[in-house]
Amino acid sequence: MADRVYNFSPGPAVLPLPVLEQAQRELVTLPGAGCSVLEISHRSKTFTAIIEAAEANLRTLLGIPDNYRVLFLQGGAQLQFVMTAMNLLAGSGKSADYVVAGTWGKTAKKEASTQGETRVVWDGADCQYRRMPRQDELDLNPEAAYLHITSNETIQGIQIQQEPDCGDVPLVCDSSSDFLYRKVPVERYGILYACAQKNAGPAGVTVGIVRDDLLDRAPANLPSMLSYKKFAEAKSLYNTPPCFGVYMVKLVTEWLINEIGGLDKMYERNKEKAGLLYAAIDGSGGYYRGHAEVADRSVMNVPFILPAPELETTFLSEAEKVGLSALKGHRSVGGCRASIYNAMPREGVVALCEFMADFAKKNG
Amino acid sequence: MADRVYNFSPGPAVLPLPVLEQAQRELVTLPGAGCSVLEISHRSKTFTAIIEAAEANLRTLLGIPDNYRVLFLQGGAQLQFVMTAMNLLAGSGKSADYVVAGTWGKTAKKEASTQGETRVVWDGADCQYRRMPRQDELDLNPEAAYLHITSNETIQGIQIQQEPDCGDVPLVCDSSSDFLYRKVPVERYGILYACAQKNAGPAGVTVGIVRDDLLDRAPANLPSMLSYKKFAEAKSLYNTPPCFGVYMVKLVTEWLINEIGGLDKMYERNKEKAGLLYAAIDGSGGYYRGHAEVADRSVMNVPFILPAPELETTFLSEAEKVGLSALKGHRSVGGCRASIYNAMPREGVVALCEFMADFAKKNG
Repeated sequence: MADRVYNFSPGPAVLPLPVLEQAQRELVTLPGAGCSVLEISHRSKTFTAIIEAAEANLRTLLGIPDNYRVLFLQGGAQLQFVMTAMNLLAGSGKSADYVVAGTWGKTAKKEASTQGETRVVWDGADCQYRRMPRQDELDLNPEAAYLHITSNETIQGIQIQQEPDCGDVPLVCDSSSDFLYRKVPVERYGILYACAQKNAGPAGVTVGIVRDDLLDRAPANLPSMLSYKKFAEAKSLYNTPPCFGVYMVKLVTEWLINEIGGLDKMYERNKEKAGLLYAAIDGSGGYYRGHAEVADRSVMNVPFILPAPELETTFLSEAEKVGLSALKGHRSVGGCRASIYNAMPREGVVALCEFMADFAKKNG
Repeated sequence: MADRVYNFSPGPAVLPLPVLEQAQRELVTLPGAGCSVLEISHRSKTFTAIIEAAEANLRTLLGIPDNYRVLFLQGGAQLQFVMTAMNLLAGSGKSADYVVAGTWGKTAKKEASTQGETRVVWDGADCQYRRMPRQDELDLNPEAAYLHITSNETIQGIQIQQEPDCGDVPLVCDSSSDFLYRKVPVERYGILYACAQKNAGPAGVTVGIVRDDLLDRAPANLPSMLSYKKFAEAKSLYNTPPCFGVYMVKLVTEWLINEIGGLDKMYERNKEKAGLLYAAIDGSGGYYRGHAEVADRSVMNVPFILPAPELETTFLSEAEKVGLSALKGHRSVGGCRASIYNAMPREGVVALCEFMADFAKKNG
């Protein structure tokens, strides 16, 4: 196996090589700190500077308005499925609206249902979760506690093109698998959350961007660790945060700013990479077939199938041999999937496209 | 500042240098994986081997019986304060007993109270939290959902000498700051939990050891991410775990087994280090004064005060200059505190003792 492969894992996923190299250089002794970033107190000046820089970088990249708090949380998107409902739904006397466009939207609704009443405003089952809803298909409740969407369904490979209009109802978004892939209008969201292990860092840290007027909606007896307000008041230091994860978010966001040149540049690169891969699928004469409808194709996750399951097995094993790794589709749907997050270099996508053309020719 | 200081931080805390060096070597490319441990899927064979090894090492070190599950959780001890109550107290129709021997016991009770009725079976306020309770002081309820204790109060520097006898009531223990400092009789516990960032790894991963008959006590509508049963069924892979933290637990437990020779050897080293430091305090003619009563002194955290707050400021700043770092006491109690966890080398404690003697002579 090559020293480093092209890693198409859906998450934890490829990280920028310069970021890994810097983390490696600094791992035993963080310059000026006298010890590893793994060993320093979360209340030390050194760590305070790290977490403040990570937040500042996110604010720079996304243009986050001042009335939004940036929180570093734990537990991944799965815990946010519950926390959003605990903070905004439980005890509100309202119900919450959910778009179920794929696996994660469905799971988010299920977990939120433990905290209060939830309504499905659109379900993609009838279209096999191949697309996102149009605005006029949404059965919105103007009195809902919030509307929850999943901006990118990692498993089905579909992605919203723009935010739905839900008026004064707060828009809550699981952006786990497309966070930072481009600039989004944060001011249209009530809460935007994302686990880090796709575009922002390693597994174990989750970013929550919360509009500050929503902090007061939680019931009084909410446990501290599940309260956005407690995290906001303590600047994410209510308890010990996942320090290394926050440090990695700082490095990744620095890379986005200094090496890539910001999210508009990142988006251009991402569109180009996705364009190459979808062209390889579309140009295969039907040998490879995508799952998503063209208009809602994800720029991050590209699921596709081959003419037969045996061919997929061969495809995956031969790809692995030439350093194209982790292309297996999610266990719930099978097939293949290439996740081409921010840190996947163009060269990796080109190599995959060439491999796909070659494989189709040999096995067509 | 020296390249690496002696780091007396209460947590995140010093890690074994050979562990940091191995993590550094492997950070960009984990041998055989083709990418960083930060980038691999939690469902890959490589990561499965890592999490299974971490569990096996913990089982070896602590002699964990087969009817206990080892879970890798997130959110630190603070989330366990709530999860224990959500899983064992909520909906049980019972109340839960709490020993409040210091800051963390008090916080654990407060957070659990959001989920059901809690009772204090002993409160150390009258003795300024200088000692642990004796068995005959505990006002135990034989019908309690569980008895919660904190085996080591990090801030007050007191530690239990042996587990209280609570009969058939499950004993739930926050062992965050003394986990793995010696072998404990796991079979006496219902749940033993510990955040990793003292003796077991970096911040962001929490170990939960749960007796399997307790898994079924949770209410049916418990959110998945807060359910021990869900984590047990999924072998800690219900969602993406904090992979790097689990990897570090694997390395630290390997170090304990292979370099230290197991927990009995570790305990000998820990007792010797603590003995040196307490001797420095006791032999200072009252210049340094400890907080804890002698019988319950913590082997992990040693808080002490100087004759005047100004002297403490000078002490801390001069110590920092000679590479004795993070000796400031917790913001809630002030003073000084040396945390001398497993990975603190004997040389660090000796250097501190010499510095203390020298400082007392110059400033006495």
